[in-house]
Amino acid sequence: MFVNRRTVRIEWGDCDAAGIVFYPRYFAMFDAATHHLIEAAGWKKANLRREFDIIGFPMVDTRARFLLPSSYGDDIVIETRVTAMRRSSFDIEHRVFKGEALAIEAFETRVWSGPHPDDPTRLKGREIPETVRRRLSEA
Amino acid sequence: MFVNRRTVRIEWGDCDAAGIVFYPRYFAMFDAATHHLIEAAGWKKANLRREFDIIGFPMVDTRARFLLPSSYGDDIVIETRVTAMRRSSFDIEHRVFKGEALAIEAFETRVWSGPHPDDPTRLKGREIPETVRRRLSEA
Amino acid sequence: MFVNRRTVRIEWGDCDAAGIVFYPRYFAMFDAATHHLIEAAGWKKANLRREFDIIGFPMVDTRARFLLPSSYGDDIVIETRVTAMRRSSFDIEHRVFKGEALAIEAFETRVWSGPHPDDPTRLKGREIPETVRRRLSEA
Amino acid sequence: MFVNRRTVRIEWGDCDAAGIVFYPRYFAMFDAATHHLIEAAGWKKANLRREFDIIGFPMVDTRARFLLPSSYGDDIVIETRVTAMRRSSFDIEHRVFKGEALAIEAFETRVWSGPHPDDPTRLKGREIPETVRRRLSEA
Repeated sequence: MFVNRRTVRIEWGDCDAAGIVFYPRYFAMFDAATHHLIEAAGWKKANLRREFDIIGFPMVDTRARFLLPSSYGDDIVIETRVTAMRRSSFDIEHRVFKGEALAIEAFETRVWSGPHPDDPTRLKGREIPETVRRRLSEA
Repeated sequence: MFVNRRTVRIEWGDCDAAGIVFYPRYFAMFDAATHHLIEAAGWKKANLRREFDIIGFPMVDTRARFLLPSSYGDDIVIETRVTAMRRSSFDIEHRVFKGEALAIEAFETRVWSGPHPDDPTRLKGREIPETVRRRLSEA
Repeated sequence: MFVNRRTVRIEWGDCDAAGIVFYPRYFAMFDAATHHLIEAAGWKKANLRREFDIIGFPMVDTRARFLLPSSYGDDIVIETRVTAMRRSSFDIEHRVFKGEALAIEAFETRVWSGPHPDDPTRLKGREIPETVRRRLSEA
Repeated sequence: MFVNRRTVRIEWGDCDAAGIVFYPRYFAMFDAATHHLIEAAGWKKANLRREFDIIGFPMVDTRARFLLPSSYGDDIVIETRVTAMRRSSFDIEHRVFKGEALAIEAFETRVWSGPHPDDPTRLKGREIPETVRRRLSEA
């Protein structure tokens, strides 16, 4: 499946009073990583509304296993891939490396969502377009 | 097991451009909820160092299932309980309610950690004190 | 002018590796404090769109002077008041107290903004409604 | 004076429900920008403790004027420079550009701080080392 890699610098403000990354910050990095994956596949989030009438892909289930801590000044590599695509939802895996070592494994399930037809303040799952499905399923 | 409940107001700044909570913010709320649980049991984080030579309880594994979105102005109730205690690690469950409805289920495993004896910049798991173990195991 | 006071608990995740609040977190607390001030005056942010066709009040200028640090477990009191109202913009002052001591002084200028008539993705300043102006000018 | 430039991608999670950057996020970007300036001058934050017994440079006064909003997918350039150096404090200016346009001007005063000799939990201003002062004063 489609893979994207990014190097992320851990900043002072990402860390807590124990001097290691405050773990909710990793989820913000993973959210960005998923957006960068979709962008690397050809679709900037800012254009999804216009192109597919999609507002976003809200998270429905996520898990992370933290194996090694990181601290400010560290450069981590986030490797992000699609691991499954269904009608309107898809699975993502993030693997974080510090040098050669696996530091975090994270998993997410998201729903490809547009405005709800009956209520513009709500979201509703949509069928993932064939062009997106095909591109994200490529090696 | 020991339970704590807190009402949390969703703020404008907790939400993303789709108008719903940016999910990493929930993990920050859950981290605070775990600290409030430990405090409700009798131990403020700020005193743990002095009392038990503990720096914190870093996350090793966490998962969240998002069933209902929330938006700014909503008041959610986070119900937090200990679900397992082991020698140096423990499990926490958070259930988020919007009114009567279950909105999120989250699970965490944390390690009771002090400074590493060989390297003050690292953390090392410690045995959870009997007094803490007993109190958190109460109904 | 109208004043609102809130007690805010400093959480572990608000602090940086020096063990004190990472200052950008204060700005998130101040943003929430301004929303709570407007709500205490009678208008929940979630209803502003419906009531006044207002999307928000984006920040145009803010300053903060940090006099005393705070750390996790501290309860601070944020005292928020309107200090000036103009046609479409207004000034807010936040004073943060730790016990009796003044810990932070912060100032903001915001613009009362609705959707831009020519471009729904942009915002445009609107005249502050007389009812809002009058209420926020009360002692 | 010493200048550093960085391109920063605005992420989905940096934006609020109005679709523009939640302004406290800019302060986190500015904090990172100041650390990158010091690092570009030759000193990684992670080494400051060892090299100069410095824990950080806490903010004492900061101001930002927001001229143009940005949204997710935008790449902004943050240009950071030292504008004044005193015995133990220094001033930083950040200018944010969207293309050619100036989007934000921000100012900060920070104190070069080490552990307090009488209380390890507090910080105390230290004289900025001559080598740091000279390097940051270079064109």
